[in-house]
Amino acid sequence: MRRFLIDTDTASDDAVALLMALRYPGIQVEAITVVAGNVPLDQAVQNALYTVELCGASAPVYAGLARPLMVPLHTAQNVHGRDGMGDIGLPLQGRVPATGHAVDVLIETINRFDGEIELVSLGPLSNLACALLLDPSLAGKVKSYTMMGGIGQGYGNVNELAEYNIWADPEAARIVFESGLPITMVGWDISRLYAAFDKVESARFRSIGTRFAEFSVDIQGAVDAFAQSETHLVGYDLPDPIAMAVALDPSVATDVRYLPVTVDIHSSLGRGQTVVDHLKMTGKQPNAHVVLTADRTRFLDLMYGCMRD
Amino acid sequence: MRRFLIDTDTASDDAVALLMALRYPGIQVEAITVVAGNVPLDQAVQNALYTVELCGASAPVYAGLARPLMVPLHTAQNVHGRDGMGDIGLPLQGRVPATGHAVDVLIETINRFDGEIELVSLGPLSNLACALLLDPSLAGKVKSYTMMGGIGQGYGNVNELAEYNIWADPEAARIVFESGLPITMVGWDISRLYAAFDKVESARFRSIGTRFAEFSVDIQGAVDAFAQSETHLVGYDLPDPIAMAVALDPSVATDVRYLPVTVDIHSSLGRGQTVVDHLKMTGKQPNAHVVLTADRTRFLDLMYGCMRD
Amino acid sequence: MRRFLIDTDTASDDAVALLMALRYPGIQVEAITVVAGNVPLDQAVQNALYTVELCGASAPVYAGLARPLMVPLHTAQNVHGRDGMGDIGLPLQGRVPATGHAVDVLIETINRFDGEIELVSLGPLSNLACALLLDPSLAGKVKSYTMMGGIGQGYGNVNELAEYNIWADPEAARIVFESGLPITMVGWDISRLYAAFDKVESARFRSIGTRFAEFSVDIQGAVDAFAQSETHLVGYDLPDPIAMAVALDPSVATDVRYLPVTVDIHSSLGRGQTVVDHLKMTGKQPNAHVVLTADRTRFLDLMYGCMRD
Amino acid sequence: MRRFLIDTDTASDDAVALLMALRYPGIQVEAITVVAGNVPLDQAVQNALYTVELCGASAPVYAGLARPLMVPLHTAQNVHGRDGMGDIGLPLQGRVPATGHAVDVLIETINRFDGEIELVSLGPLSNLACALLLDPSLAGKVKSYTMMGGIGQGYGNVNELAEYNIWADPEAARIVFESGLPITMVGWDISRLYAAFDKVESARFRSIGTRFAEFSVDIQGAVDAFAQSETHLVGYDLPDPIAMAVALDPSVATDVRYLPVTVDIHSSLGRGQTVVDHLKMTGKQPNAHVVLTADRTRFLDLMYGCMRD
Repeated sequence: MRRFLIDTDTASDDAVALLMALRYPGIQVEAITVVAGNVPLDQAVQNALYTVELCGASAPVYAGLARPLMVPLHTAQNVHGRDGMGDIGLPLQGRVPATGHAVDVLIETINRFDGEIELVSLGPLSNLACALLLDPSLAGKVKSYTMMGGIGQGYGNVNELAEYNIWADPEAARIVFESGLPITMVGWDISRLYAAFDKVESARFRSIGTRFAEFSVDIQGAVDAFAQSETHLVGYDLPDPIAMAVALDPSVATDVRYLPVTVDIHSSLGRGQTVVDHLKMTGKQPNAHVVLTADRTRFLDLMYGCMRD
Repeated sequence: MRRFLIDTDTASDDAVALLMALRYPGIQVEAITVVAGNVPLDQAVQNALYTVELCGASAPVYAGLARPLMVPLHTAQNVHGRDGMGDIGLPLQGRVPATGHAVDVLIETINRFDGEIELVSLGPLSNLACALLLDPSLAGKVKSYTMMGGIGQGYGNVNELAEYNIWADPEAARIVFESGLPITMVGWDISRLYAAFDKVESARFRSIGTRFAEFSVDIQGAVDAFAQSETHLVGYDLPDPIAMAVALDPSVATDVRYLPVTVDIHSSLGRGQTVVDHLKMTGKQPNAHVVLTADRTRFLDLMYGCMRD
Repeated sequence: MRRFLIDTDTASDDAVALLMALRYPGIQVEAITVVAGNVPLDQAVQNALYTVELCGASAPVYAGLARPLMVPLHTAQNVHGRDGMGDIGLPLQGRVPATGHAVDVLIETINRFDGEIELVSLGPLSNLACALLLDPSLAGKVKSYTMMGGIGQGYGNVNELAEYNIWADPEAARIVFESGLPITMVGWDISRLYAAFDKVESARFRSIGTRFAEFSVDIQGAVDAFAQSETHLVGYDLPDPIAMAVALDPSVATDVRYLPVTVDIHSSLGRGQTVVDHLKMTGKQPNAHVVLTADRTRFLDLMYGCMRD
Repeated sequence: MRRFLIDTDTASDDAVALLMALRYPGIQVEAITVVAGNVPLDQAVQNALYTVELCGASAPVYAGLARPLMVPLHTAQNVHGRDGMGDIGLPLQGRVPATGHAVDVLIETINRFDGEIELVSLGPLSNLACALLLDPSLAGKVKSYTMMGGIGQGYGNVNELAEYNIWADPEAARIVFESGLPITMVGWDISRLYAAFDKVESARFRSIGTRFAEFSVDIQGAVDAFAQSETHLVGYDLPDPIAMAVALDPSVATDVRYLPVTVDIHSSLGRGQTVVDHLKMTGKQPNAHVVLTADRTRFLDLMYGCMRD
């Protein structure tokens, strides 16, 4: 039994990733820790609780930081909808999270299962950074850590250079990248290239026909509209699910390089940029396994498999 | 009975300030939380424990963060001596702090005595910032908060612009200044102007003749040498004791203005500078009661009073 | 005969300073070079030409840069009036400057009178910086250089930290401070402390009764209103005249220290700050004679003397 | 007859580009203006003069700025050799440039041939920026402007993010990119992808057999060694020649997009980065025609053609 610990700012694509982890064979999700990001903290907690309930799972959901370390929260509700789940009328209120602070749960759980936890983060890194500030030894105690965040190569999704999860809390990201955690970084470029869904693929996805598939597609409506109008992409993409797929089955990533990655926390232009030393010309030590290519078919097979009853 | 909670990177002047709080009438020191700063964390913990023992006090001492939030620790051992206590041969090892993380203790204690705690910080603000990240409600639950840190007006003590406690962890300081805590800021300028000890005054201090006075003066030897050779001052100064004096008796501060203070976290030149809007020309909201002048006589009387058996 | 070369963003206090130089005994003003600053370039040129004409002088006026090196122009028309001369109805249009670019004139004049020029700048340093970029040897060819700009100690006049002339073009200021020019820096703090005019002193000034005195006082009306409403000062102050007084008679400055001064060009908070190493603790080389105190009586006597027929 | 004006920090690849322009049919090189960059100014002037002489051309060579606007000069002599021409013993001294400052020549020439000049820059943009500061109208008076500099997409050649010409003088580059000049940007990525020479291609180049071809290949020796040891590329690449090829024949560039490009002048990490808004998501106005792909065959044909007697 593999032990997963998932930190998430639960909105539409996080929900699909959670569903994958909760339904993939052989996975025990020890805890879901929630952070502000795509939506305000309380909404993200509700979205996570709803998703767990939909799966009939028992993973406990804990609330964490309501804002980034140093800057105000900028949600992505323009992308994901006001409720973060596409505003399709889901009953996303009234559920009650487990007692305890997400940061304490991260510290306690990783220490309890020293060497066993497969950590996955799907949102800004505020919770994780705080946990590392309080207990730097965590970095050496996880079995693996897969991050959806940053840009391996190419352009950003909030501005020319930055991806949302890193941009939303660059200081937290800096702490995480310098922590010594065994990072596998699945950037937004991987999602854009290998996890985009045009009308045809999206129809194929929904035609799986289970409530899981229908839920997973229907909550992408707001993202789909945004992708076509703002970023001029062919449809929505699913960053968190492809990152979760890499966490569940590393062979989804086909070219992974161990490279030095630095998070820019100072510049106004480059703030939140993940600066990757592809040529290893700086002399900095490698600190992240950067996914550069992925296998779309394997990703789709894995995700679609999680959707079937 | 007043309840004090003191966060400190215990070195020579911190020790004097701790001694004042532990011996001033009517004060219960609920906890001493220790942070890395002047000296590495472990040394600071030992220095605090030694000082508590010297006073025959029972205040528990807790270890906190071993480094600033975003940057490596730069100690001030060049100023305070390798052991932070003037390297005069004190037995500063082997004592054992209380169990628990300083950040958890800050959160727990302030919540337990909601509205009663008089918080004092004598070092970098790493512990305090972490506590505020985990529980922003702390800001509204302390009775008062006195900070030794920053510059109200004039120049810095680590470079042209910055004071050590802020400079050592500017991001933490930014979090604290933006938290809503009821800050009274006692900057290094106040220490330089009202708490400097030339040979004559230092002799008068030591002539009080108690082991408290002798300890308090003897551990300043390294600072005294530094002051005369590096900053060209007339002798050592005692920033933490004058801040503690303001905390113990606010009338030690004679001109206090409620002003907007921003911590510069970006510039290389101004990093760690406390930017005070003296003319209130920026439209920023005031967030700190900045001490601009103090009463040296009242300070000395208060401190010397704490030295007597 | 002393040879002056004056660079100015001519508005109300510049005009008084120009008048002083044009009427002080023994001074030949070789050229007046104009830069954008308090007002747009064309207006500043007109203001300089009007002032020269008022004095019956023949100093040629040249137009220079219409904007700072790296940033858009932010005028101080909110301080000096729309026409920069208090909007009192002066006929400030239609005069024609001399042919040639101010930067070329600076280069040519300083080279022609190698070792003789007493350079004075009263505005942003865009012209001067460009001249130094094209011909770095200028720095060693002036007899003296007096700058109105920056803050020696204390707070700024555009924000907490910066003085207008430096803030308006920090990159140009950095170039000038690093050029090797023999800088005497008369900061805004000197003006605020020694060159402020309350109603009584202003009446005394105007009562000199000449058209020069009446002109000099009347054009300060907008500044006077601004000082009282925005910066809460007792009345207008005259930065450029007290800097010009120091240039004309160095004994107006009573405490001048040769100190390292660095211009902050990066931080958003400290951008344009003149960072002075008062304690010489950084190891940087001194590069400016910073005026720390002045003799108000001597300044007023000198300026009032220039007003008399 | 087309009128070219070429600004260059002449080292090995600049020399080849100069040779191309001097020998391509129908081109009149009105002036070669030299700037410090790859090598100190005096060396660059000698290298340009030698190249002109080798071609039996009469284009005048003018010296310009000896350093970047705001920062010290960092040459690339580690890449190009101490003399910038591969240290192969060429007699690179003693020639005398034309009288006049490169910046004045840029201003004068572009104004004289208003609308006719095809401007090409091969080095840091210090000269060009100064010319634009003195005369912003230049931007509207050139027929075209081709810049070798920056990165269109991908990684840098001096660090993770920046290309040398922009990194060496980012403030100058910012001025140029904001000037309104009709920029065609040929970044280092284009050179790396379409203008790299492995042993086989280099041998084919040299086998053209003329003194021009032999010169062009022999002076790349130092770059070749650097490419293989430091940047792990297959051989040397020729950034300036492929940029010159685009200037001489725009069809060498096969995918050119008009995009917003901003130069980062603040961050330490991203300083000198050309930030390209590929998705046009920022709302910034396009200001540069960014070359994204090129035709290697057409480039080689054009360059090799210039080598033949």
